[in-house]
Amino acid sequence: MNSGMVYLVGAGPGDAGLITIRGLELLQRADVVVYDRLVDEGLLSNVRSDAELIYVGKSSGEHTVAQSEINKILVAKAKEGKSVVRLKGGDPMVLGRGGEEAEALVANKISFVVVPGVTSAIAVPEYAGIPVTHRGLAASFAVVTGHEDPTKGESSVDWGELACAADTLVCLMGMGNLAAIVDEILKGGRAPETPVALIRDGTTPRQRTVVGTLSTIVKKAERAKLKPPVVIVVGDVVKLRDKLAWFDNRPLFGKRVLVTRSRAQASAMSRLLAERGAEAVELAVVEIKELADTSELDDAVAHLQDYHWVLFTSANGVDAVWRRVRALGLDARSFGAARIGAIGPATAERLQELGLYADFISQEFTSE
Amino acid sequence: MNSGMVYLVGAGPGDAGLITIRGLELLQRADVVVYDRLVDEGLLSNVRSDAELIYVGKSSGEHTVAQSEINKILVAKAKEGKSVVRLKGGDPMVLGRGGEEAEALVANKISFVVVPGVTSAIAVPEYAGIPVTHRGLAASFAVVTGHEDPTKGESSVDWGELACAADTLVCLMGMGNLAAIVDEILKGGRAPETPVALIRDGTTPRQRTVVGTLSTIVKKAERAKLKPPVVIVVGDVVKLRDKLAWFDNRPLFGKRVLVTRSRAQASAMSRLLAERGAEAVELAVVEIKELADTSELDDAVAHLQDYHWVLFTSANGVDAVWRRVRALGLDARSFGAARIGAIGPATAERLQELGLYADFISQEFTSE
Repeated sequence: MNSGMVYLVGAGPGDAGLITIRGLELLQRADVVVYDRLVDEGLLSNVRSDAELIYVGKSSGEHTVAQSEINKILVAKAKEGKSVVRLKGGDPMVLGRGGEEAEALVANKISFVVVPGVTSAIAVPEYAGIPVTHRGLAASFAVVTGHEDPTKGESSVDWGELACAADTLVCLMGMGNLAAIVDEILKGGRAPETPVALIRDGTTPRQRTVVGTLSTIVKKAERAKLKPPVVIVVGDVVKLRDKLAWFDNRPLFGKRVLVTRSRAQASAMSRLLAERGAEAVELAVVEIKELADTSELDDAVAHLQDYHWVLFTSANGVDAVWRRVRALGLDARSFGAARIGAIGPATAERLQELGLYADFISQEFTSE
Repeated sequence: MNSGMVYLVGAGPGDAGLITIRGLELLQRADVVVYDRLVDEGLLSNVRSDAELIYVGKSSGEHTVAQSEINKILVAKAKEGKSVVRLKGGDPMVLGRGGEEAEALVANKISFVVVPGVTSAIAVPEYAGIPVTHRGLAASFAVVTGHEDPTKGESSVDWGELACAADTLVCLMGMGNLAAIVDEILKGGRAPETPVALIRDGTTPRQRTVVGTLSTIVKKAERAKLKPPVVIVVGDVVKLRDKLAWFDNRPLFGKRVLVTRSRAQASAMSRLLAERGAEAVELAVVEIKELADTSELDDAVAHLQDYHWVLFTSANGVDAVWRRVRALGLDARSFGAARIGAIGPATAERLQELGLYADFISQEFTSE
């Protein structure tokens, strides 16, 4: 049998829209997908229903599956003639051990293709309003692993040298060693008032940024109880965030909105919501009406109060949700403090019959 | 009128498959696309037929349109209520002045969104078989502009500091200053035997790589007559290319193949060809038969000898091409040294009637 191919694919920094066209196509065609702990597992909904999914995720510090084991899986599946996608967060070759996997494939005479990805080292600062380079502020940037403890003398990173060399320093996987890293950068001669940003869950609706300086950031991080994964950015470009923050400044940032999808309009609506910063969760109520499986809808109905908004796009959508509310032994109170939106007066009327007066009624969904 | 939105979109490093899903969607919906000199202008075929395309490309050294002028265009088009995509090579914030454009938008109260892209600083080395980081060889990399002449004392890049700080140095736009940059890195203390790679037209079918060391690379570049744009990579990771080169090692790398597209099969064929390294050029002959406009087909027919292979997928495809060959006053000799492939015996027979004996006949397109 001919050996299959292995594709080392970068999944991007978290936001599922940031995977490449090539990466998505390969994911859709793969026989086997070997994947890390990704920020957005929604990407996996693109695989074929008969594809084999193998999780080899690593949490910070603990390796669920040893690298040698991952290499063996890739080789074995390819030798079975399978088309294997190795899906890695960010870019496969940026501090992600993709090079080692490629070496293992070469050693076993297996063909491979690298599909680069958007790296979180650049994209996460961008989503926080921080360009890694900027005319007059930064003509260079360095990306460094923070995984190795700089005080243990076994680190391969020379922080003293790096401290003043590149205008912007971006450190990945460094949150666990933050105090030691900041200390080394200061010892290397970088000014204590140099701005620093810590960005957690970058490019996702949960993105959170803490800004300080080399002298204040360790305390600020403790106070904010920031946990990994965090991208650390050091340099004058951090100041631009005041002006250029766009992602977390959008009007609906951090809001979860449930959209009943019973019209083509719904996906345009979800897009508008997402563009304004909301996390739009779509529910195909019409399909589900005709299907026996109501588990997805039931799950949403059981947690209605976790949403900031529930938007109904039709009277049908209202009916479908209400049937499940009643079937679960609940009533109108299950909406909790979630606000309710209705598209079209008929939708609003049906809601009123159930004791629910929409907070927002619109003929069609507009940017309002 | 409400102001429109500006999307600062990274087009990726050249290979059109490396744009993000989000970037492509926005390109497809844009009212206005303001674009740089892109490596793959094929991306622009995705825009709406009524979209306005504005070229503001810069060649190395000469600015076709001043940055202030670009900023004005973005602001003006957004104020007309248009959805504007600002399409930039690589990532918008990596040495691409995207931050300045964002500042201009903020100053004019125009909303913007950043869509990160795959940067050539990482992807181009990857396509040359060089991971920018690799366990045991490089735990950090720095990306630096080479646009400023380091000998003129006006450069904002401290090459002396950078030389030994990051394990891998990636320099963009540095080809014009190569000798001076190499000199500064040597003065900064990096060993003369440190490997260097120069990669021109990275991620495209014309990709070309020259490898040397800090002491040999300047002469090698002269001998190879390498011209910008070139990505410069300095560091031990360059050695991995011997083992890990995959893109330019593929069996059909550098070959141009014309595929007559008269069956759904053709696009699967193009994909197989592209995966093996060929530049597949598709021609929709069936559509063209019914259209008055034969200019695209005529252009291909007039340059048949520039292709390494011409693949016919049906007897119809043969007829369509032959009609144009004759209409242009040409005959079978117009194929020059191009090799001819036929899918199916009927296709091969039709070719024989025209005096052309296919070099390759297959029932269906397989990896052979």
